[in-house]
Amino acid sequence: MRRLDELAQFSSRNGEITRLYLTPEHRAAALKVREWMQAAGMRAEIDAVGNVIGRYDGTTLNARSVLIGSHVDTVTNGGKYDGSLGVLTGIHAVAELHAKGLRLPFAIEVLAFGDEEGVRFSRTLTGSKAVAGILEDADLDAADSAGITIRDALTRFGCDPLEIPRISRRKEDVLCYIEVHIEQGPVLESAGLPIGVITAINGATRFKVEVAGTSGHAGTVPMNVRQDALAAAAEMVLAAERLAQQTEDLVATTGCIEIRPGVVNVIAPSVGFNIDVRSSKDDVRQNTVAALQDSFQAIARRRRVAVTTEGFYDEAAVTCSSWLVKALEAAVARLNLRPYRLPSGGGHDGLAISSLCPIGMLFVRCAGGVSHNPAEAITADDADLAIRVLLEFLQHFEPDDAVSGIREA
Amino acid sequence: MRRLDELAQFSSRNGEITRLYLTPEHRAAALKVREWMQAAGMRAEIDAVGNVIGRYDGTTLNARSVLIGSHVDTVTNGGKYDGSLGVLTGIHAVAELHAKGLRLPFAIEVLAFGDEEGVRFSRTLTGSKAVAGILEDADLDAADSAGITIRDALTRFGCDPLEIPRISRRKEDVLCYIEVHIEQGPVLESAGLPIGVITAINGATRFKVEVAGTSGHAGTVPMNVRQDALAAAAEMVLAAERLAQQTEDLVATTGCIEIRPGVVNVIAPSVGFNIDVRSSKDDVRQNTVAALQDSFQAIARRRRVAVTTEGFYDEAAVTCSSWLVKALEAAVARLNLRPYRLPSGGGHDGLAISSLCPIGMLFVRCAGGVSHNPAEAITADDADLAIRVLLEFLQHFEPDDAVSGIREA
Repeated sequence: MRRLDELAQFSSRNGEITRLYLTPEHRAAALKVREWMQAAGMRAEIDAVGNVIGRYDGTTLNARSVLIGSHVDTVTNGGKYDGSLGVLTGIHAVAELHAKGLRLPFAIEVLAFGDEEGVRFSRTLTGSKAVAGILEDADLDAADSAGITIRDALTRFGCDPLEIPRISRRKEDVLCYIEVHIEQGPVLESAGLPIGVITAINGATRFKVEVAGTSGHAGTVPMNVRQDALAAAAEMVLAAERLAQQTEDLVATTGCIEIRPGVVNVIAPSVGFNIDVRSSKDDVRQNTVAALQDSFQAIARRRRVAVTTEGFYDEAAVTCSSWLVKALEAAVARLNLRPYRLPSGGGHDGLAISSLCPIGMLFVRCAGGVSHNPAEAITADDADLAIRVLLEFLQHFEPDDAVSGIREA
Repeated sequence: MRRLDELAQFSSRNGEITRLYLTPEHRAAALKVREWMQAAGMRAEIDAVGNVIGRYDGTTLNARSVLIGSHVDTVTNGGKYDGSLGVLTGIHAVAELHAKGLRLPFAIEVLAFGDEEGVRFSRTLTGSKAVAGILEDADLDAADSAGITIRDALTRFGCDPLEIPRISRRKEDVLCYIEVHIEQGPVLESAGLPIGVITAINGATRFKVEVAGTSGHAGTVPMNVRQDALAAAAEMVLAAERLAQQTEDLVATTGCIEIRPGVVNVIAPSVGFNIDVRSSKDDVRQNTVAALQDSFQAIARRRRVAVTTEGFYDEAAVTCSSWLVKALEAAVARLNLRPYRLPSGGGHDGLAISSLCPIGMLFVRCAGGVSHNPAEAITADDADLAIRVLLEFLQHFEPDDAVSGIREA
């Protein structure tokens, strides 16, 4: 907890936690994380894409690795635990093994990815994609609001972008990936449980909705002849909420809406809003998006306005490997905690790593489900439990089981 | 129609009609209007507040006046007819009397007010208020976005603000005020009628609504525990629309809405919007505002969000004098048109003048009800009919009837 407080000091602004990818504060945080990794008995370095990688060797020199990771970047004015908790619990688990002089029949690598939030550049998961070998060279041309590309920022950060292809891992060198993360939601808190085992990272579809009505004077156009784009949009927002409430394992959110011209005495001719739909089941998500689009068309027809929708983001759900889910549940049960499964509504570095190896995730209860906010909070007891679960998992992990688990899947 | 096209050329920007109070283009337009008034046989001048006033004397030197007016300022990127039509129909009616050498037993004054729209300064009806004697000296301290006060702008325009008190009229010198205006709504067009007689200028209440919910991650917070400020606001917008649809002689509009933080993947904790409610009946308007506020509280309680409302504008309805309504209807009927009464949803210079003398208004059908927009359109035939109705009204108008009408009221 002390180290999480310390990490929170690396911020572009005093009084808040804002640590974007490849900024000076990211570099300072990365150096501190490398120092902690070294103190925990790991060889550690900053790689070509700005990740910090620590390796704790196994009983044999060229043992395959269990990867444990998360990210050290934050959103603008974010919290102390989103990302950082996963890196610190990994370091602490290794530190305990090191303190006891324990070597396992596999290596452990702790990864502190540099860019999960995607706030600075119009790209996310740059660090984990590079490790998974799925980062495209063109991704490095994405620029921030000042016109600086990821490629330029890497050079300023002290990295050599030409070395990036060399940091991708071969499937035969890694066993699995485990990520600890705060829940960012209220489910565990409601269930009265400190730890949850993730079954899948939800797929997400985002689409833009544009409603075109007819402008009019707020005082002179009778209600029955109006073609009010905002009233139509309001009905659509509620239709999306209602359908999501009626659909299991699905959420839908309207987080932004824009009205044009936005004048108190003008019936709005034009309203745009976005909808974000998520589910751990791709077919449920896709069917809901289709049903919403039909419902919006029906609302538009009835109100004599026009509506268009345009998808701009579509990520399939990623399933956590069932043998890893079971192994993590067993670790939870050995600590006399009730195993509890839930899907992850948010995206995580595991999304990218899933193309490299099986992934598993643990969620830690957070206060009020609050995240992406300075009010983000967890307890020291819950953080410690996450480290205990990691150690239980690692000490019972059989690399051969993992290999057969991979083969079965 | 040619003169309306000519007037539309006085604009701060080519290709649109933007003529704000006390700008160089307003001055150029005022000089042109004065020239037209003089050509129509009137003595004309620009007064101390920037109005153009033309006087066509009656049969006796000190005859009381019938005022005919409207405004020559426009909204930003407005239309050709809003305001200007009322000035031009007044000038043309006088021109016809003048061409026939007709003097009436009362004077006619045509007034081209300078500021009805209130776009430049945070004040409206400056010109008509000055004439009615209800402009406060402090109103002249209102400043535009560049910090120029009305007082300074008047001086630059060539006016002497110290002379403003002298342009207010005495009740005993005026008989009534008549304004011709485009409808700015679709009612006459739907009824298939070129001209309507206005019964009242609707009262208006505007209030701000703030909804406070709880922020959350769009992917991780289950639907049933959300406190989504936008969904609550959407329900309120629809509740206002529904109540207005069910209430006779009332409209309600949400023309602006703001969502905070307005991010695609964040459940909004905060939404603000404004509601504009209008009716020709003050009690209907007030009861509706109260009912809406109750309904918003009920929606907020059910959704576990907080709502506050704050009124920021409240204007009582102004009733057109019944004897003027009847006299204008009689003029319409003599032209073999069906008299048709309707309230005015928009505010007009008549609002200010109603504190000086009885007012009456005529609406002219406009295409699609479109206004405050370059697409504003009327037909030459309809404009001519408005002039015919004015002339019918004027030629049958008995000052003594007016005086007794005033006394009765």
